[in-house]
Amino acid sequence: MEVIRTIQEMKQLCKKYKEKQLGFVATMGFLHDGHLSLMREAKQENDIVVSSIFVNPLQFGPNDDYETYPRDEDRDTLLAEQAGVDILFIPTPTEMYPNPMMIQMGIEKRTDVLCGRSRPGHFNGVLTVLTKLFHIISPDKVYFGLKDAQQVAVVDALIADLNFPTELVGMPTVREADGLAKSSRNVNLKESERKEALWIYKSLQKGYQLIQNGEKDPKKVIDEVIKTLESNVSGKIDYVELLSYPSLEKVSTINQPVILATAVYYEQARLIDNLLLNENGERIDRYIN
Amino acid sequence: MEVIRTIQEMKQLCKKYKEKQLGFVATMGFLHDGHLSLMREAKQENDIVVSSIFVNPLQFGPNDDYETYPRDEDRDTLLAEQAGVDILFIPTPTEMYPNPMMIQMGIEKRTDVLCGRSRPGHFNGVLTVLTKLFHIISPDKVYFGLKDAQQVAVVDALIADLNFPTELVGMPTVREADGLAKSSRNVNLKESERKEALWIYKSLQKGYQLIQNGEKDPKKVIDEVIKTLESNVSGKIDYVELLSYPSLEKVSTINQPVILATAVYYEQARLIDNLLLNENGERIDRYIN
Repeated sequence: MEVIRTIQEMKQLCKKYKEKQLGFVATMGFLHDGHLSLMREAKQENDIVVSSIFVNPLQFGPNDDYETYPRDEDRDTLLAEQAGVDILFIPTPTEMYPNPMMIQMGIEKRTDVLCGRSRPGHFNGVLTVLTKLFHIISPDKVYFGLKDAQQVAVVDALIADLNFPTELVGMPTVREADGLAKSSRNVNLKESERKEALWIYKSLQKGYQLIQNGEKDPKKVIDEVIKTLESNVSGKIDYVELLSYPSLEKVSTINQPVILATAVYYEQARLIDNLLLNENGERIDRYIN
Repeated sequence: MEVIRTIQEMKQLCKKYKEKQLGFVATMGFLHDGHLSLMREAKQENDIVVSSIFVNPLQFGPNDDYETYPRDEDRDTLLAEQAGVDILFIPTPTEMYPNPMMIQMGIEKRTDVLCGRSRPGHFNGVLTVLTKLFHIISPDKVYFGLKDAQQVAVVDALIADLNFPTELVGMPTVREADGLAKSSRNVNLKESERKEALWIYKSLQKGYQLIQNGEKDPKKVIDEVIKTLESNVSGKIDYVELLSYPSLEKVSTINQPVILATAVYYEQARLIDNLLLNENGERIDRYIN
C-alpha cells in the first residue's frame, strides 16, 4: 500500500491508473469495521482501491468535536492495508485548504432534517471536501456507509446534480454483537452509556415491527421508537424521524422507500442509527445510484 | 464531427477517449472568430476537441437577454467542424437541468466587481454549468477567451479551489479590423453604435499609454479611459475599473498584474472589453493556470 500526502502526487498516481477501474472510500480515520467493510467491498468490485483519511475541519461547527475527534494514523494505516487498500491519501488541512475557499458549495434540500438540522453548514463542508477528493482521485465508484444515510442522500444529490462520472454505493451499517452501530465516536461512551446504547437500534427495530404489522402512520411508528428510547436510554434524544428516502421529506403515509432514523446525545458522543425500507416496507441495506 | 445531445452518450464517448488528451471549449453558440480561435488552439494542443453549445438559463438574470440571445445551430455546427471540433455537445435545458438543482455553487471573491456587480448570481450559474460540463466531458484542458477576463478569473478559482484535474487556458480577445472585440452580441448593435464602438478598445489603449509612460495611479488611468469614452461613445458607461488579476481587487498603485476593463450599455447590447498587463506593465494575452 502506498501512503500519499500531497494532492499533486495523488493526482499523478490516479492519472497513471486512468484505465483501471478505481474504487474510493473517504474516511475521517479511526477506522472500524464499518470503514473496513467498505474497503473490502471496493476491493472486490474494482482494480484499485483508494482510501483517504482526513478529518475535514470544514464540516465541523464551532461547538462540534473537531479537536477531540479520535485520530490514530499508525493503526489506520495497518488496518487499511489489511482491508485491501492500494493507495491511502492522508493530506493535512493546509494541503487541502491552502487558502480560504473562494468557491462555496451548498445544498438546500435533504439537509434541514435529521442530523442536518442541528449541524448547520455541516453538509456544505461535506460537499466541498468530497468534491475536492473526487477531483483529486477521479474514482469510478465511491463507497459510503448507510449508517450516515443522510450523508449518502446528500452525496446522491451531489453526484446527480453535478453529473459526476462516479457511481455511488451505500453499504450496510456494521454493528457490534449487541446491535450498536459501529462508530469512531463509540470510544467516547462511558461504560454505562455503552451498555444501554444497544437500545438505540432496538428501538428502531420496535418501530420496524409496527410497520411489518401493517402500520402506515409515521407518527405511530415514531412514537413507538421514542417511547422505547425514553424507557431504556439515559441520553437525550436529538430526533426520531421517518422520512422518504433519499429525498428526506415528510411523508403522511408509509407507502414508499423511507428511512426511520434517530440520534441520541451522550455526554461525549452523539450516536446515530437508522433503518432503510423499500416501497414494500422491507429492509434494504444497499443503496446504489 | 459527432453531434451529441444527451449527457449519457457524451459521458460514454468521453470515457472511450479516456487515454487521449482532451481539450474542451464551452460556448453559448452563435460562434464567432473568438470561439473558433479557441477551438483551433485546442485542436493544436490536444488529441480530441470537444465543444459545447448551451445557452445556460442559470447564468441569466430576470432582466438579462436569455430569450433574445442569438442562436443559429446549423451555422454553428458547420463552423465548429471547420475549426477542428471532433465532438459537439448540444444539450437542451431539460437535459442539463431535469429537476430544480439541489446543489448550489457560489463564489464570494472576484465577483463583486466589473460585470459581476450588475449581474448578481450570474457567476453562480456559470460555476454550476461549467462544473456539470467538466464532469460530463472530463477535459484535460479547457479554453476560455480573455474577452470575459472575469469569467477566466472565476474559472481559475473554481479549478484551483476544487482541485479539478483540468488545466485552464485563457486565450487572447479576437477583434474586428477596427479593434472592436468580437462578440455574439455585436449583431444587436445599430449601425451608428457599431461605428463608434471601436472607441471602447481605443479608450482602453489610451489608459494603457499612460501606464506605458510611467503612470502608477489607477485613478488617473481610469479617468483617462472614462474621458475618452465620454467624448466618443453614446452608450452608457457601466464601469471602468483597474484591478489586480486574477484576484480582481482594488490596487492603490500599479505594480502587479492588473486588468483594465470597461463595459458600455447600448440599447440592445452591453459590450465589454479589457486589457491585461503583467507586473511590468506589459500587455499579456495568454493566461495559464
